[in-house]
Amino acid sequence: MAVYTEIPDDALADFMSRYDIGTLSSIKGIAEGVENSNFLLHTTTSPYILTLYEKRTAESDLPFFLGLMEHLAARGLACPVPVHARDGTLLHRLAGRPAALVTFLEGMDVKRPTAAHCAQVGSALAAMHEAGSDFSMTRPNALSVAGWHTLADTVAGRADRVSEGLGALIADELALMAAHWPNDLPTGVIHADLFPDNVFFIGAELSGLIDFYFACTDAYAYDIAICLNAWCFEADDSFNVTKGRALLSGYNKVRSLDDAEADALPLLARGAALRFLLTRLVDWLDGPQDALVKPKDPREYLKRLRFHQHAVGAADYGYGG
Amino acid sequence: MAVYTEIPDDALADFMSRYDIGTLSSIKGIAEGVENSNFLLHTTTSPYILTLYEKRTAESDLPFFLGLMEHLAARGLACPVPVHARDGTLLHRLAGRPAALVTFLEGMDVKRPTAAHCAQVGSALAAMHEAGSDFSMTRPNALSVAGWHTLADTVAGRADRVSEGLGALIADELALMAAHWPNDLPTGVIHADLFPDNVFFIGAELSGLIDFYFACTDAYAYDIAICLNAWCFEADDSFNVTKGRALLSGYNKVRSLDDAEADALPLLARGAALRFLLTRLVDWLDGPQDALVKPKDPREYLKRLRFHQHAVGAADYGYGG
Repeated sequence: MAVYTEIPDDALADFMSRYDIGTLSSIKGIAEGVENSNFLLHTTTSPYILTLYEKRTAESDLPFFLGLMEHLAARGLACPVPVHARDGTLLHRLAGRPAALVTFLEGMDVKRPTAAHCAQVGSALAAMHEAGSDFSMTRPNALSVAGWHTLADTVAGRADRVSEGLGALIADELALMAAHWPNDLPTGVIHADLFPDNVFFIGAELSGLIDFYFACTDAYAYDIAICLNAWCFEADDSFNVTKGRALLSGYNKVRSLDDAEADALPLLARGAALRFLLTRLVDWLDGPQDALVKPKDPREYLKRLRFHQHAVGAADYGYGG
Repeated sequence: MAVYTEIPDDALADFMSRYDIGTLSSIKGIAEGVENSNFLLHTTTSPYILTLYEKRTAESDLPFFLGLMEHLAARGLACPVPVHARDGTLLHRLAGRPAALVTFLEGMDVKRPTAAHCAQVGSALAAMHEAGSDFSMTRPNALSVAGWHTLADTVAGRADRVSEGLGALIADELALMAAHWPNDLPTGVIHADLFPDNVFFIGAELSGLIDFYFACTDAYAYDIAICLNAWCFEADDSFNVTKGRALLSGYNKVRSLDDAEADALPLLARGAALRFLLTRLVDWLDGPQDALVKPKDPREYLKRLRFHQHAVGAADYGYGG
C-alpha cells in the first residue's frame, strides 16, 4: 500500500481544470502499487486513476510508459488509458511530482490464482507482446544481467545475513548468467512485472493489465519466465506444473513460442528468480524503514531459483506434451 | 490512512453474495479514517464503502452507529446509508472482523476550510441534531468528563514530557470541569467528531457527513464546541472569529441555540479542547508504533485550550452581533 503525497485543494482544482472529464466529485488515496501515490477519482462522467510519480520512477521514463499504455489500448489491449489534457499533454506536475491521469480499469486482482487464471494471463501477456510489436519507442531493461551485478554489489558481504551461503550462490548465478544469458531471442516491449496484483479479473474473466512502470524492451520469453515465477508457485514454494502448462499454452494460443525461446525457458526463469531475489534483498537490507511498505521476503525467490537450477527443459514448466 | 485487514477472495465472494447490489467489479483499500479498514467497491449498480471494524470500535456499539446512519438518512440528512443484506441484517463478519456495507457518499474533504465552508458545516450539524432528535437508541459519551479523568490517569506523570507544566494544567482543567460542566443543556444524538475530514463538499457545496463512529448522546452545544475547535482555528493557532460567526450563524439558522447553550460555549469549547488534547496525548505517548497512522501533535489542542481559558462569553466565538 502506498499514498505518499498529499494534494492541496487549490493544486487539485487547477490540475482538474486542465481536463475535459467532468466535475470532480470524489478523490480517495488507494492502497495500490508500492512505487507511486495513486488516487481513485470519481467525476460526473467516469472514474479515473490519478498517479503522482514518486522518486523510484524516473521522470525521463514516463513518456515511454504513458505512450506505451496509449499504444496498447489503441491496439485493443485492456489497460488503463492515459487521458490527454485539453492542451494535448499527458504528463503534468502536481504537488511537486510528475502526475498523470488514466482511465479506471474495473477488476480485481486474485490472491490465489488457479490454472484457469494462469491460462488467461498467458494469453493476455502474448496479446500485450503482439499489441506492442509496432510501438516505436524503446527502453533498455535496467534490471537485466548488468543491473543484477549492480544490485549484487549493493548488498555485497551482507547477503548471508538473510540466508547462509546466499552471497556465494548469487556470485555463482551471476557468473553463469554472464556466460549464458541469451541475446538473440525475439525481442519487443515486455511488461516485466506481471505479478498477480497487476492483472485484474471480474468474476472468472480477465479484465485487463495494469502497472506498466517496469515495461522495457527485452526478450518476450523473459516476460513469460517472470510470469512462471509469479503465478505458478504454490504457498509451499512448490512449482505447480498444471499452472505452468496453462500459462504457456494460453500464451502459445496467441503468439507461438519458437524453439529457441522454449529451450531458453529454464535459464530465463532462473534469471528472473535471481532478479526478484536481488531487488527484494536490496529492499530487505536497505529499504525505507517507514513501515508503509512491508518488504517482501527475498528467500521466497531463493527457493524458486533452486527449483530452476534443477530444470532441464521447457517440459519441466509444462511446455509441450 | 489505514487499511489493516486483507480480505481473502472466497470470503469476499461469500460476503457479496449476501447482498442484492449487482456484481462486484472493483475493490480498493482506501486511505480514509484511522480507526477501521475501508474499501471502495464498484459494482454493476453503484459504488459502496465496505468497512471492517478494527479493535478500537466496540462491536457492541455498531448497532447504534448503523441504526443512526439509517435513521438520519431516512430523515433526509446526506450521509452514507447502511445497506441491508437479503436477510435484512446490517452487520456481518468478514476476515474475522465485524463488517458493514454503506452507500458511497460523493464529495471531498477540504484541507483549508473557509468561512463559507464553516457556515455550511454549522447548518449541517444543526440538521443532523434535528434529524436525530427522534432516534430511539442512546449511547453515553465515553469521552466526556469521567472519560477524561481515565485518559489523564493513563498518562499521569508523563504529560510534561510533551510540554512543560502540562500535567498540572490538565489536573487544573479536570478539577474545573468536574465542578462546572453543565448537565442540563438540550441533549440528543451528537456527531462528536465532525472534523474537516468528515465533511464532504462537491465544488463549493456541502454534500454530506461521514464517520459517525464517535456519535453518542450528549449536549448539542458540545457538538458545536467541538466544531469551533476543529474548523475555526488557523494554522498559526489563532481563532478566526469570522469562521466562528459563520459556523454559529449557520447552525442557528436551522436550530436556534437557547441562552443557556450560548452561555456555556466557552466552557464547552474548553472541555472539547481538553478532550482532544487528552486523546492525542495518549496516542502520542502510547499509540501503536507501526507508523501506519502518524499520531497528531497534542500541543495543537493545548494552544486551543489556552484560547478558551481567556474567552468570557459566546461573543468571543462570534455569536450574536
